Amino acid sequence: MSPLGAGDFPFIIPLLREKESFLMLTHVNPDGDAIGSSLALALALRRLRKKVTLVRVDELPETYRFLPGADLYVPYQQADGEYDVALFLDCGDLERVGAARSVVDRAKVKVNIDHHVTNTYYGDYNYIDPLVSSVGEQIYQMLHAAEIALDKDIATNLYVAVATDTGNFRYENTHVDTHMIAAALLMEGVEPGEISNQVYETRSLAAVRLLGAALATLQVSRDGQVGWLTLTRRTLDETGATDDDTEGLVNYARSIRGVEVGVLFRQVEGGEVRINFRSKSRVDVSAIASQFGGGGHPRASGATASGTLEEVTDRVLTAVAEALQQAQ
Amino acid sequence: MSPLGAGDFPFIIPLLREKESFLMLTHVNPDGDAIGSSLALALALRRLRKKVTLVRVDELPETYRFLPGADLYVPYQQADGEYDVALFLDCGDLERVGAARSVVDRAKVKVNIDHHVTNTYYGDYNYIDPLVSSVGEQIYQMLHAAEIALDKDIATNLYVAVATDTGNFRYENTHVDTHMIAAALLMEGVEPGEISNQVYETRSLAAVRLLGAALATLQVSRDGQVGWLTLTRRTLDETGATDDDTEGLVNYARSIRGVEVGVLFRQVEGGEVRINFRSKSRVDVSAIASQFGGGGHPRASGATASGTLEEVTDRVLTAVAEALQQAQ
Repeated sequence: MSPLGAGDFPFIIPLLREKESFLMLTHVNPDGDAIGSSLALALALRRLRKKVTLVRVDELPETYRFLPGADLYVPYQQADGEYDVALFLDCGDLERVGAARSVVDRAKVKVNIDHHVTNTYYGDYNYIDPLVSSVGEQIYQMLHAAEIALDKDIATNLYVAVATDTGNFRYENTHVDTHMIAAALLMEGVEPGEISNQVYETRSLAAVRLLGAALATLQVSRDGQVGWLTLTRRTLDETGATDDDTEGLVNYARSIRGVEVGVLFRQVEGGEVRINFRSKSRVDVSAIASQFGGGGHPRASGATASGTLEEVTDRVLTAVAEALQQAQ
Repeated sequence: MSPLGAGDFPFIIPLLREKESFLMLTHVNPDGDAIGSSLALALALRRLRKKVTLVRVDELPETYRFLPGADLYVPYQQADGEYDVALFLDCGDLERVGAARSVVDRAKVKVNIDHHVTNTYYGDYNYIDPLVSSVGEQIYQMLHAAEIALDKDIATNLYVAVATDTGNFRYENTHVDTHMIAAALLMEGVEPGEISNQVYETRSLAAVRLLGAALATLQVSRDGQVGWLTLTRRTLDETGATDDDTEGLVNYARSIRGVEVGVLFRQVEGGEVRINFRSKSRVDVSAIASQFGGGGHPRASGATASGTLEEVTDRVLTAVAEALQQAQ
């Protein structure tokens, strides 16, 4: 935990211990941190014999279905009871839960656990720590403080949360604590080799072919500082790849020597274009994304814009060029 | 350090402290562990005011030229003095130093520091620990035991050694100690974000185009357990990519769901084919590589075979199919 990040942390621990029924929510299109940290906390609460209703809006990505406890997830429509506490994990604001918004008021108290700097503090209790890598780290700190023992299943979920949100300990959000926590999780029997086989080495053939097709569209700006890839609906259809398979493609655009900002443009249904941004070290891409109604982190963000691929590409590349100029 | 791995460790520490001049060698085509662990030890010895001659046979890959102390490397022909100690890092046998073999007898004592299970114990002193991830971990343990303080430059080199040899803490060779060491290195000021930008995010445009071209050749065996990529000289020439750029391509073949063994075939000069093997969890690819005169680790190995691409591909895929059958 960073010194600034405690917030209502001391008040949340007693809630976990004393309350009986918990509704758990995370953001739409959940990633490894959202799913791993949710499952870890859900399993820990069940060890305390609490009633836990862990809801989802979307299907879990296939990549994460191997996680211990993944079958605890139920469609949010099944959350039809009353709950003492609603736990929001990895949600910068209340709208991030998507359609599950309709069930959140079934809980008496809202607890907001998140690491996004843009968090709106919508909870009755808020534990927001923008200096840690992941909600996984926050849940580790909470369980540690609450003296709730880990087991291999809980540790595996926390490991996946931390590892995926740090690009496997590569991003600048990786700190001394991050590795100390990873060491503690491995002590519980977590198997990094097995997990990375599951998370990174289970691409579909279609996904690998999609990567090849995406790389064929690679363009780099004249000054070499912006790289971008473009995926049409047609490419997605021809390769048989899914939207999930597009995750991470944008990193290839950023990975080129001299490129500061990588962008992926992807045609989605309804004449819209999904835009993913990544930067290396200077440009705050969450600010660019917010110009297009999106958001995220300084080095990783996203937005959805209306218009043709060409129009959106032009507008976005102009915004990126301006941001680069300001970041000189 | 693993309990079995100490070997002559206790005798090597006094050598570092008491001897004056050191010749340092590592294997040809040095990787991140070879270079990072060598530079870390060289910098540490210089802090002790020792004379260090760190030799190379090949040019350093561009990726690693940012490492602190990289300019200490000299061509092996310049090692024309007499030395108290020759330090061999990450060399399974004496031949691995390549042409630098001609200068090793200029040292009175040979010290062999390595983590390959196949090591031939060619040193007068041998510190061989096949249970650690990397020579980087071994050098960390040695400096720690010798009470030689780290600094940011030494720590950065050790971090790169450990991170690159563990696939950034992803492979099964990552243990509790590996993360504890990473935490200790970050305490010295190591910046994982900056380093991964340098190591992973400085691909040439040619290398990214090569990846696209390689993926276009992807084939998967009928049973789905073997994936392979093929690089002709022509593809390498057309993309303008270098041999260094082919590193890591084989991982894409392995990364497919259901694939146990990934293989990269690459035409090299003189009618030979370079073969890289990766496996996920069952097949010992060092055994396959040794059938073709090569070697390596159970999950990562390589060999060079004579013949046309088609001949070599046939022979290798037959050997892989046999190994898969035995590993059932």
